[in-house]
Amino acid sequence: MKWGNNSCSAVWVFLLFVSYHATCIASYTSPWGWECRTEPVDGNPDPTQVDRCIKVEKSISPSATGLNTCILTCGPHGAIWPRPTGPTHIGPYTAYFLPQNIGQVTTTCPGSIRHYLDMTIEVFVDNINKYHPDYVDGSAPWDGPYGPEVTDQSLEIHIIVTEESMTLDYNTDESYDLNVVHDGSITSATITAPTFFGARHGLESLSQLIDYDEEKDSLQVVHSAQISDSPVFPHRGIIVDTARNFMDVKSIERTIDAMAASKLNIFHWHITDSHTFPLNLENLPDMVEWGTYSSRHIYQPADILHLKEYALVRGIYILPEFDAPAHVGNGFQWTEEAGLGKVVVCLNKEPWMQFCVEPPCGQFNLANSNIYTVLSSIYDGMVPLFQPLSSFHYGGDEVNLNCWNTTQEIIDWMTANDYGLSSDSYYEQWSIFQENARLELTEANGDVEVPGIIWTSSLTESGHADQYLDPEKYIIQIWTTGDDPIIGELLEDGFNVIFSNFDAWYLDCGYGAWVGGPGNNWCSPYKGWQTVYENNPIQLASDITGADYSSQILGGEAALWSEQVDSLNADAKLWPRASALAERLWTNPSESWRMAETRMIHQRQRLVARGIAAERLQPEWCHQNEGLCYA
Amino acid sequence: MKWGNNSCSAVWVFLLFVSYHATCIASYTSPWGWECRTEPVDGNPDPTQVDRCIKVEKSISPSATGLNTCILTCGPHGAIWPRPTGPTHIGPYTAYFLPQNIGQVTTTCPGSIRHYLDMTIEVFVDNINKYHPDYVDGSAPWDGPYGPEVTDQSLEIHIIVTEESMTLDYNTDESYDLNVVHDGSITSATITAPTFFGARHGLESLSQLIDYDEEKDSLQVVHSAQISDSPVFPHRGIIVDTARNFMDVKSIERTIDAMAASKLNIFHWHITDSHTFPLNLENLPDMVEWGTYSSRHIYQPADILHLKEYALVRGIYILPEFDAPAHVGNGFQWTEEAGLGKVVVCLNKEPWMQFCVEPPCGQFNLANSNIYTVLSSIYDGMVPLFQPLSSFHYGGDEVNLNCWNTTQEIIDWMTANDYGLSSDSYYEQWSIFQENARLELTEANGDVEVPGIIWTSSLTESGHADQYLDPEKYIIQIWTTGDDPIIGELLEDGFNVIFSNFDAWYLDCGYGAWVGGPGNNWCSPYKGWQTVYENNPIQLASDITGADYSSQILGGEAALWSEQVDSLNADAKLWPRASALAERLWTNPSESWRMAETRMIHQRQRLVARGIAAERLQPEWCHQNEGLCYA
Repeated sequence: MKWGNNSCSAVWVFLLFVSYHATCIASYTSPWGWECRTEPVDGNPDPTQVDRCIKVEKSISPSATGLNTCILTCGPHGAIWPRPTGPTHIGPYTAYFLPQNIGQVTTTCPGSIRHYLDMTIEVFVDNINKYHPDYVDGSAPWDGPYGPEVTDQSLEIHIIVTEESMTLDYNTDESYDLNVVHDGSITSATITAPTFFGARHGLESLSQLIDYDEEKDSLQVVHSAQISDSPVFPHRGIIVDTARNFMDVKSIERTIDAMAASKLNIFHWHITDSHTFPLNLENLPDMVEWGTYSSRHIYQPADILHLKEYALVRGIYILPEFDAPAHVGNGFQWTEEAGLGKVVVCLNKEPWMQFCVEPPCGQFNLANSNIYTVLSSIYDGMVPLFQPLSSFHYGGDEVNLNCWNTTQEIIDWMTANDYGLSSDSYYEQWSIFQENARLELTEANGDVEVPGIIWTSSLTESGHADQYLDPEKYIIQIWTTGDDPIIGELLEDGFNVIFSNFDAWYLDCGYGAWVGGPGNNWCSPYKGWQTVYENNPIQLASDITGADYSSQILGGEAALWSEQVDSLNADAKLWPRASALAERLWTNPSESWRMAETRMIHQRQRLVARGIAAERLQPEWCHQNEGLCYA
Repeated sequence: MKWGNNSCSAVWVFLLFVSYHATCIASYTSPWGWECRTEPVDGNPDPTQVDRCIKVEKSISPSATGLNTCILTCGPHGAIWPRPTGPTHIGPYTAYFLPQNIGQVTTTCPGSIRHYLDMTIEVFVDNINKYHPDYVDGSAPWDGPYGPEVTDQSLEIHIIVTEESMTLDYNTDESYDLNVVHDGSITSATITAPTFFGARHGLESLSQLIDYDEEKDSLQVVHSAQISDSPVFPHRGIIVDTARNFMDVKSIERTIDAMAASKLNIFHWHITDSHTFPLNLENLPDMVEWGTYSSRHIYQPADILHLKEYALVRGIYILPEFDAPAHVGNGFQWTEEAGLGKVVVCLNKEPWMQFCVEPPCGQFNLANSNIYTVLSSIYDGMVPLFQPLSSFHYGGDEVNLNCWNTTQEIIDWMTANDYGLSSDSYYEQWSIFQENARLELTEANGDVEVPGIIWTSSLTESGHADQYLDPEKYIIQIWTTGDDPIIGELLEDGFNVIFSNFDAWYLDCGYGAWVGGPGNNWCSPYKGWQTVYENNPIQLASDITGADYSSQILGGEAALWSEQVDSLNADAKLWPRASALAERLWTNPSESWRMAETRMIHQRQRLVARGIAAERLQPEWCHQNEGLCYA
């Protein structure tokens, strides 16, 4: 760069080197501290008292501690999220320690899983380092100076696992016992669990008995604790959509990190849709070539394999979805030139509202048997990336009959085969497609059948589900309202179900319209964390049926459809609200959200410490003044 | 760290060094390109046609370009945001260039402002480097290899400014002319402006005639352009609240960066409130000591001075607010021990809803004349940090009379002085406080009077404003609904006004309840960008009064109250919606948001390129398929 007449090179160079640095504020000492006190709860019948951390002047209450210390040890469940379901005792004191003073770490387990335990211990150590406010890129400045009350203390960890399996499915025992004792200079934590997954959850709980202490610039761990814990529901997930907008691998890693922090266990990945096909299948490179937004919006096979392992180490199964026969479109442009005919009809067709629920349109061409050639290739490409499969999601939502019934090739085919052109005729063909898809998937999976999951749709409407779908083979994911009578019918028909009712668990709702406008998006309003928390699948089912169908309710998922989500804002839309879902599904508490509020606010802070840009729920004043942001 | 019995040190070490790297996808070439076409607009009377970038197969349309190239040159205003108000011509071609091939940069200007022009040129160069998708921390990998069509091209910039003033106030001329010509190997951009501020806006527009080209991995600039531009309103701002939650200096810098990208010019800083006093005033260190959330939530004087300069270089005035006599509280605890008595009453008083609009409560103690001692110290500390003042914000909203009228000290004082205890008595005393505050501020400002701004409140209610406030001295910031008759009364009383009507310009609305719950926050629903865009102050005033009061409407501000905002999510809540505000205030377009939609979506992408985590408004598919996400 050359500076012309009247240029001021000297000034310029000067400016480049005089950069601003914020003044150091290390000298500040707060006059405030916190004390755990038992307080009455106004107007709340159960319980009538709660333990709260109360802000006090240290000069008046010399035993007051830092806020984190108080929160770790105040109340029956301290700062553990989700609340444990079994007997829990958390002692009133903490001991300092530094990550470099973690002492013995022992693992007693079948040799085949030690690799995974080692990795999850590494994650644990990283997580507790992240409590340091100045943690950056894998390290925190634990550089003191420290007195002996910090340096003479150490933390030991002992993990005992009995089972060998690394498969996470509906039969996996995720329970654990955690015992923490302190002998003067060593805090010893023992985790006992039947499976790797339980042990991982135990380590997560241990990390939640630990927090940063500002005054000592040290970690601290609760002195003594006993926790017995296991989840109520086996399916505790979130669904992320990477087809409307792309999420990069780093943002998916963050999502998995945050899930692990709340003991969620299913990352349901809606990878493709009519908008894009961002998955590079090595056996079908044309799909991504035509189907991606750009070279920067592609998942390579190595990305998937990496994320699968990344999730497993954090106790999470990646549940892949290939949505069909609707919600396909861009990416399939290559099939005609390849001599396979039109595999997708109504592709990007206008006016879109006549042929699909949102732009762009696209639906498999029922009349073209090559759809199965392509579908089996897609499955052949996908399945090895996600194996071992515990379940598979077929999508199967929002078929637009008008698309099929205005496509001459399909009308001709339906007529020639005497199928008719009624809605029921199309439902019948759709259900045949679904069964064929299931067979293709099973074949791609080495003839190993896995539970199939399918969205509620016209195929699951009143009187349809038992006609078109086999409850032994399909789990239904409910996305209608939580009071929809169809929920009762599906349960009565014997289907296992997963709840994602949009009126509570759709986390993309409440923002501005993204087609047309003004006004807000279709499923507005925004679902606050309290609404997410209060959504109780067993209660909803019972309200509809008058019966207890809890054995058929596998759990639930919060959904983040991505019309208005990408790598930059997924964190804030998912978190901490998906943590509210996590406590519903792990604990299924009988108490209201009010009893969880202070732990929830602190869980948000924990997520932030772990690098998740979680939404702010309240002023920090409410975090520092527990129970006072009531109304 | 020591690994005990059964440990697998070898495995552990191995794991630490085998880290994952995403596969490179540089080989991907898209089959898609874009063409600018003129298309009819359905159902939209004005205009009936628009230019749109249409996605086409490159094999069929070989002249199709990349999306960015098309957007730069398609339509009468290309990718400029906000839309220029004067004659604008943007040519149909672009030339490649690399930042390292910026040639002559000349500035013809009074010597005193060259320093600022040099700095704003530095910002410009950084901004165009940021268009590279792999830009990180101040640099982008412009490392080719490049052919001569890139390396033989250069960009020259000539800036001519006539006036010397670096003061941004309501009299500042922010207009500019920008002329771009191309001679074969040099693209030459000339910016002529009366003031530094106009020249900066011209550079901003020039940066919006530039974008990244994926195929060449190069920058490109529009070949020829002529733009004459100036804003409709002089006050184009956002208000940020750092008292409910803290925003760190980096996040304020990002906010200023994004404001500059939309030619907003007022950063209204609501620094303090009842929750915290995060500003370290060197003459009053007790305020921050008692008033901050923690040592990590403090603005040091150097931070303010840095941000003031950072903003000025980007054409922005930092308008400081010290809100009183309500919205004070934490931080003032020291005054009693210091012998000044209670300066704040109702401090953290419960039940809060009886004494303030949100927890925690606090209001100046009318009965204690030491409030003026403290207030003048606060002003003495604040003013030098923000000088030269163009205006000052006194806050002045949401006084709770019940707080004063249940405080014995105040009741006694009101009674002893025969002021009475009626509402009007308190309003009278409040207005006297306000006038005293104005005198104290003026004194702190070296007896230089500046326009004072004050929120609508009980003091500005029907029949009050002209009784209690002088329209020559106060500008009223309106935060009621846009159809509130009080707006008409204020205008008829001769007040100049700034619009921040909450039903369109409060960007914190629509999230979950933060006091109590379930349900959503008080000003729900969320204000989509279309709602922000359509909010037309002149039209609102005209609808209420039937007259044209445009000369009294100084502009407006989008508000981001921070109960649910901190450094992590301010970007997404402000942007790109505050860009919609920016076009309303710069351009005051007569067309609807529909005509701005494609530029708006691209402006969001520009903000993201500049490091702002702006909200996603639509699927990327809508960006790539202009005009098809209609409803």
